[in-house]
Amino acid sequence: MFITLEGPEGSGKTTQALQLVVWLRQQGYDVLSVREPGGTDVSDAIRHILLDFTAGSINARTELLLFCASRAQLVSDRIKPHLSRGGIVVCDRFADSTLAYQGYGRGLDIDFLKALLRFATDGVTPDLTLLLDIDVDTGLHRKTDKTEWNRLDAEEVQFHRRVRSGYLTLAAEDHRRWVVIPADQPFATVTTRIQQVVGDSLKRRLGRQQV
Amino acid sequence: MFITLEGPEGSGKTTQALQLVVWLRQQGYDVLSVREPGGTDVSDAIRHILLDFTAGSINARTELLLFCASRAQLVSDRIKPHLSRGGIVVCDRFADSTLAYQGYGRGLDIDFLKALLRFATDGVTPDLTLLLDIDVDTGLHRKTDKTEWNRLDAEEVQFHRRVRSGYLTLAAEDHRRWVVIPADQPFATVTTRIQQVVGDSLKRRLGRQQV
Repeated sequence: MFITLEGPEGSGKTTQALQLVVWLRQQGYDVLSVREPGGTDVSDAIRHILLDFTAGSINARTELLLFCASRAQLVSDRIKPHLSRGGIVVCDRFADSTLAYQGYGRGLDIDFLKALLRFATDGVTPDLTLLLDIDVDTGLHRKTDKTEWNRLDAEEVQFHRRVRSGYLTLAAEDHRRWVVIPADQPFATVTTRIQQVVGDSLKRRLGRQQV
Repeated sequence: MFITLEGPEGSGKTTQALQLVVWLRQQGYDVLSVREPGGTDVSDAIRHILLDFTAGSINARTELLLFCASRAQLVSDRIKPHLSRGGIVVCDRFADSTLAYQGYGRGLDIDFLKALLRFATDGVTPDLTLLLDIDVDTGLHRKTDKTEWNRLDAEEVQFHRRVRSGYLTLAAEDHRRWVVIPADQPFATVTTRIQQVVGDSLKRRLGRQQV
């Protein structure tokens, strides 16, 4: 089973992803926990390029293609093999982040991005995607300290609004895969809700396999 | 003016490209000579990844995306600026190689590849593409020594035949940009033909600019 966590800045996604991995392992599941970019030798080398060159010196198109290249290697070397062994993969952000940020946020052509992502992931799609949804102001306040917050200009806030509504659009287009989880609640409440959703989904899959 | 040289293995393309650069510089043109992958700091870092990891350890999709990432940076950092300063760019293989080898040769979807290349190159297209065309057997014999030639299996030869006919198809689709140059002739004959074609093209451009 392939589970991804998505969401705008400040949604608590990364911590919840780790929490989910711990919970699943406690129940005896064989869990691969991945976070992009990186996770294979080739992907780590690509990650170094993304870190070594500052935003000004690396072209936005190059950056997106490097992310996709890293993802292609991660899917073929680790995600696919783990899934075919019957394990669970938990991924903090995956292809949908590219659609939300570069597509809805930056205005790149969504159909082109979908074709690019289908190519990079060789068609591997999550079985379950948890969207930790949070209001943009609340999320950005959580993520940034006061000084940073004052520096955020109106355009940047608009960008994050487009990302959030992009996520909600993607979720609305595929109710079978996406579950929207309100992330403005206490951390433990969100954790419990995630465990319910994942637990139910695992039970349903087990039920189907036994039938 | 943006000039690319394309062609199957053993067509003498690389040496002819260098010869062309020398000839243009002798006439006082400001020529940027590029060869992929590489040519910028970011692209060189990508080139290292492509060289460091053997063909077995790097996924074919990753490899193609890395090539495109390197190309995106080369276009934005060097090709575009040089063209907009009025210089000439000579490139030994460019986007059409991806169409010929990965598309026609390996069978990847041509329409997807065209969209991917349009994205990577930001729509920058050569003004003139010289296809150094050579029969597959002759080209491979030139390129490989006897031992290697005997190792080439039928499948590989078929691949190179698809690449050649892919190039001819691309050339037939756009007569204004492509010029097919028979490359099975003596080196100096091919050089002279290339100089004629490029010289005529430069004259026509100059004529248009003066009108």
